[in-house]
Order: sequence, then structure tokens, then C-alpha cells
Amino acid sequence: MNKNIIFHQLFENESFTYTYIVGDQSTREVVLIDPVIETFERDLKYISEWGYTLKFVLDTHIHADHITSAGEMRKKLGVKTGVSARAGVSCADLQLKDGDIVQVGNVAIKVLETPGHTDTCLSFYTNGMVFSGDALLIRGCGRTDFQQGSSERLYKSVKQNLFSLPDDTVVYPAHDYKGVQRSTIALEKKFNPRLRDGISLEQFVETMNSLQLPLPKKIHEAVPANLVCGRIKGIEGLNPVYEEGVPQVSSETLNLVLQNNQDAVVRLIDVRRYEEFNGELGHISGAELVTLGDDLERFLLENDRYQQIVFVCRSGARSGVATKQAQSMGYRNVVNLAGGMLAWNEYLRVSQFEA
Amino acid sequence: MNKNIIFHQLFENESFTYTYIVGDQSTREVVLIDPVIETFERDLKYISEWGYTLKFVLDTHIHADHITSAGEMRKKLGVKTGVSARAGVSCADLQLKDGDIVQVGNVAIKVLETPGHTDTCLSFYTNGMVFSGDALLIRGCGRTDFQQGSSERLYKSVKQNLFSLPDDTVVYPAHDYKGVQRSTIALEKKFNPRLRDGISLEQFVETMNSLQLPLPKKIHEAVPANLVCGRIKGIEGLNPVYEEGVPQVSSETLNLVLQNNQDAVVRLIDVRRYEEFNGELGHISGAELVTLGDDLERFLLENDRYQQIVFVCRSGARSGVATKQAQSMGYRNVVNLAGGMLAWNEYLRVSQFEA
Repeated sequence: MNKNIIFHQLFENESFTYTYIVGDQSTREVVLIDPVIETFERDLKYISEWGYTLKFVLDTHIHADHITSAGEMRKKLGVKTGVSARAGVSCADLQLKDGDIVQVGNVAIKVLETPGHTDTCLSFYTNGMVFSGDALLIRGCGRTDFQQGSSERLYKSVKQNLFSLPDDTVVYPAHDYKGVQRSTIALEKKFNPRLRDGISLEQFVETMNSLQLPLPKKIHEAVPANLVCGRIKGIEGLNPVYEEGVPQVSSETLNLVLQNNQDAVVRLIDVRRYEEFNGELGHISGAELVTLGDDLERFLLENDRYQQIVFVCRSGARSGVATKQAQSMGYRNVVNLAGGMLAWNEYLRVSQFEA
Repeated sequence: MNKNIIFHQLFENESFTYTYIVGDQSTREVVLIDPVIETFERDLKYISEWGYTLKFVLDTHIHADHITSAGEMRKKLGVKTGVSARAGVSCADLQLKDGDIVQVGNVAIKVLETPGHTDTCLSFYTNGMVFSGDALLIRGCGRTDFQQGSSERLYKSVKQNLFSLPDDTVVYPAHDYKGVQRSTIALEKKFNPRLRDGISLEQFVETMNSLQLPLPKKIHEAVPANLVCGRIKGIEGLNPVYEEGVPQVSSETLNLVLQNNQDAVVRLIDVRRYEEFNGELGHISGAELVTLGDDLERFLLENDRYQQIVFVCRSGARSGVATKQAQSMGYRNVVNLAGGMLAWNEYLRVSQFEA
């Protein structure tokens, strides 16, 4: 390997994920590729002890088997994060597209779009190394049966994009389940049982269709969290969607917020009437009843303006009014639950069915 | 890293063991360091697919947490194996001592004795890399509470031998439990919580004495197996001790043989009299009674000369005679249980107490 390049591979042994540190030896600046929330502290310590400066955190795709630590890295260190522009992760700083260059000191990392495992998969190429995410694994490839996966697109990504790299390019995937750390393009062309030379698109599609894999354990937690830049604590940094000036969060996001709300950073204020709060739609566990009108006005006057609040009502209309009212009184961390209890109950019904 | 050097690190995720492949890029010859029996097939395939020729298998020490695949490698590939001369592993081809050089093509691997974790621990140094076994781990070190371990000796090995290597020497340990793959001598001098600069022998000994670790799960299986070059199947390759021309195995080794004797490759022939076989010393489960004399002679006449047989009696005397008799009739794979049922029962008593 080029002596001017910093390179480290780290392993997370619950999701069998490889995290990479790549950078410029002369400036000691590095990027972190595919870090995992569980090893957040380890990675920071490692980077610090080796004397590196973290410039960017890149994800090869929206992971379904683990939560990225990108969001935490940005929040705690102000590091810029990058992911495919196609992923719709509005909180990511770098919206990456095919051919983009991420520059770290004198090291240029080139972005390759390699969709198929998901529709937002990227690979990163630099100095004879390709970080292939879940597109190309060692003697394997990522599954294509969720997150807009497509065997046809994956075949094309590997055969046309990755296999056109020089034969001696070293392949560093996002996972390996057998303790192997690297491969080369030449070896994968020769030995990859799914994608080696001579295997047709039809054969590949047939193989992929016959896999019948169970869903990753963490998919229902990981995918939504990764779409909002990592595990959710409170509502800061959620980057809510704005409708008529009112910040809105979905039931799915609210659920993630509440799952990580052990220390009750976020208050849930239900602005309906008493009969509704205790009526057939029920209310969200932990919600406080503060009816729109005098009650809410008193509440807002007496409360801390930095308090994080999610407002809830039946359909999202009255709670939208409440959110606006709070904002007008100086509240900075307030959002409206889009669709109210109607949407929440529907979300619970569907997610229960899925899980 | 030097471009002329072949280097690969592989991981075995049950015992968290790192296996290394190191060699000469020009001749494609390699050594394998600390391979694990569970990944025997993977390692062979890996070496073959990368186009390497395996010359030696080296073990940094007699492992207590896993069984080495060295014995299997030698048996199936005729590869030479090496381990510390102090370990008393008579079946190892290279009896390694401090300062020895293992030459692979143009790559010279230097042997360093670094006892303390066990009394037979070696490190291997080549081209700016040190394979430190369990002597020096990343931000840690091996335990010192079994296999003639000694905190005093380990302190000396690390501080005087390993820490005298150049600061930028890359440290590749036999294990890491946190997914970290490498360190440097400089980093360990600075950040190793047990052995960093400034920590005295007394402090280190106190730390090691206070660890109170449970024994490794596999220790009672792994240590004896590693002393005879790997997992035992049958009695071929056991390299028994000879006493007056009679090959002898210990109760410990016999126990390992029997544990791996599902397919009954080995027959256990008890040559005592009927009353003894069913008397107070009992007999080993699966043993067949063929009393020394006419019965045994008939048995030996009728049997396959390639049959693997362990002969047993009360003290090992009569079964020694039986072993000799079998050999004189052309039997090639026969051994005597040293000490007979007396030794066997004592072994069972002690090992039960230990486990």
C-alpha cells in the first residue's frame, strides 16, 4: 500500500461490520467509512490515539443491520457526514453523486454509484482500494430483497462498475462473516460464486431470487434511524419536514424518539379535549393533556422555551396551531406530530404487522 | 508496508484469534502463524486462491483457548510446524529458540522468546512487524495465571524485549476482543493501561494478581491437544513415548483420543482377567475384554494388522506385553496405556477436580 495513505480496518462483531479509516499521512486527516453506533467511543478513541483528525464520515448506504454513528459524530464533533444524494437524508452534509470527489488532505476519494443491494449504494475508490459496501462482498454480494434492491442493478454495478477497476484493486467490503479482511477485483472475478466471470445475469437473478433470507434483526430500527443520521435522542437535529412553516415529524420518527427518551428530554403534549384524550383513539403513552386554549397558553407562559416538545391532536391540525403558537412565544424545539393520533394508530397497526 | 512482503490477517470469531499469513511476494512462499482448527479449510482455501505456497506453520505458544491447526496442516500437507523448543512438543518439526530465523523465500522471520503469559511464548519479528502472540495485546496483555505463567517474566518480556523494538514497529497480536487489528510499539508504550511507560513491576504484578479471570472454556481440551500438534483422531501421529521399545500414551492423551473416536477408529483392548475387568478398578467405557494369553493370541491372529489399538491392564505391565506381542505379529498402530487403570482412574479423579 502507498505509504502516504492512512489505512485502518476495524471490526464490529455483532453485525460483522467493517469500519474503515482512510486518510492522508502528511496531514493526518482522515475519513471514517461505515462506522457503527455501538463502537462510537472505540472509534473516536482510536482516531485520537493514532493522532488523526476526523474530517468526514461516509456511509456506503442506508444500513439495515446496524445504526450508523455518523449522526453522533456530527452532533458531538461537528464532523461533516456524507451519503448518497438519492437516499433523501436531508441531515447529511455531503449529498454524494457518482463521480464526486471527497478530498482529505492530498487523498482524493472517488464516489461510485453501485446500486442494487439498495438503490442508494455507493462504493468509494482511492489509491488502489475500493470500499465496496454491500455491493461486492468477499466471495459474495449483498442481498437485493428490500430497500428497493434489484438483482439486475446489482449485477450491472458489479460487472460494469466494480469489475472495470484494475484487477489488483483491493476490495474492502462493509462486512465479512468468515473473518476474511480483503480481496481483489481479480480474485472476485475468478472465485466469487455469484458473480465470477461467465455467470450470466439470468443465473445471478435466479440465485438471488432463491436465497429466502430472514430480514435483518435490526431493520425496523436501523433503516429509519439511518435516514435521520443515526440513533435519535430528543428532537434536535431531526430536520423535520416543514408544512406552512410548521415543523412536522412522522409517527415512525416519533416512535424512535420515544424509544430513546428514557431521560424524558422530550415532552409529549396532547392538545385535545379531556374526552378525546380518554376516548376511542386513546393517547400515546407518556403524553400529557394540555388542551388548546387557556390551558395551553398558561402552559407555554410558564414553561422553559428550550424544552423539546412534540404536540399531538387527532389529525395534526390543532397540534399544528399549538406548535405555531409555541414558536411565536419563543419556543425553539417544538414539532407537530403529522397526522395526529389517526396516523399514529395506523403506524402502530402496520409496524406490528410487519414485525 | 514493504511491497515485497506478503501480509494477511484473518480472524476466527469464536476464540477471537488472529491468524497471520506472512511471506515473500517474489517466491509466493508463506508461513501461517497461529491458525485455528475451526478455520482449517478456510485458511487452506485462502492460501490457495491467493496463489501462495505454505512452507511453515508457526505457533506463538501452546494455546489454551483454541486448538491449533498446525498438526492437521502437517498431516494433510506435509508442512513443517514450529513452536518453542521449551514446550516439549516432540511432533513439531522446528524446535524454536530465541534468535532463530525462519526463512521464507527472502523474508527472514526472527524468533523472540517472550515468556510470561506461558513459559513457552514466542514473538515473531519481520520487516517492521511483530507478531506478539498473547504477550502483548492491543492495550492489554495475556493473563499469567496458568501454564507456568509469570507476571514478573511477562513484564520483563514486554518491557525489555518488545518495547526495545523500534517505536514504529507494528504490533499484531494473537487476539483482540474489540475489533481492533493492529497497534504500534509507540502506542503501547503510551496507552497500554497495564504496561505503558511509568508502570512499575510491582504495579503490574498487583494488577495481574487482581484479575480473577475464569479459565478459558476449552483449556482442558486445547492444551493437551496442542501439546501433541492438534486435535487427535485415532492414534496415528500421536508420537508416543517409547519405554523399552513399547509405545506408551498417557491417560490424558487417551482421553482426547476417545473424545474424538465417534467412528470407533481406535479399539480399546483390556487384557486383564474377567474378574478384574468387572472389579473395583472398573474398566474404560467402550473397552473390550480380551485376556492376555490364548484369547489375545486368537484375537491378534484374526484381526486387521492396521487396526489402531490401545492396550490396557491394571498397571500397564501386562498391556505392555500385549503391545509387544501385537507388534511382533505385524501390528503397526498399537500403543500401551501407561500406568493402566490405576493411572486412568487417578487422571479422571484429578481432571474432574480441575474442571
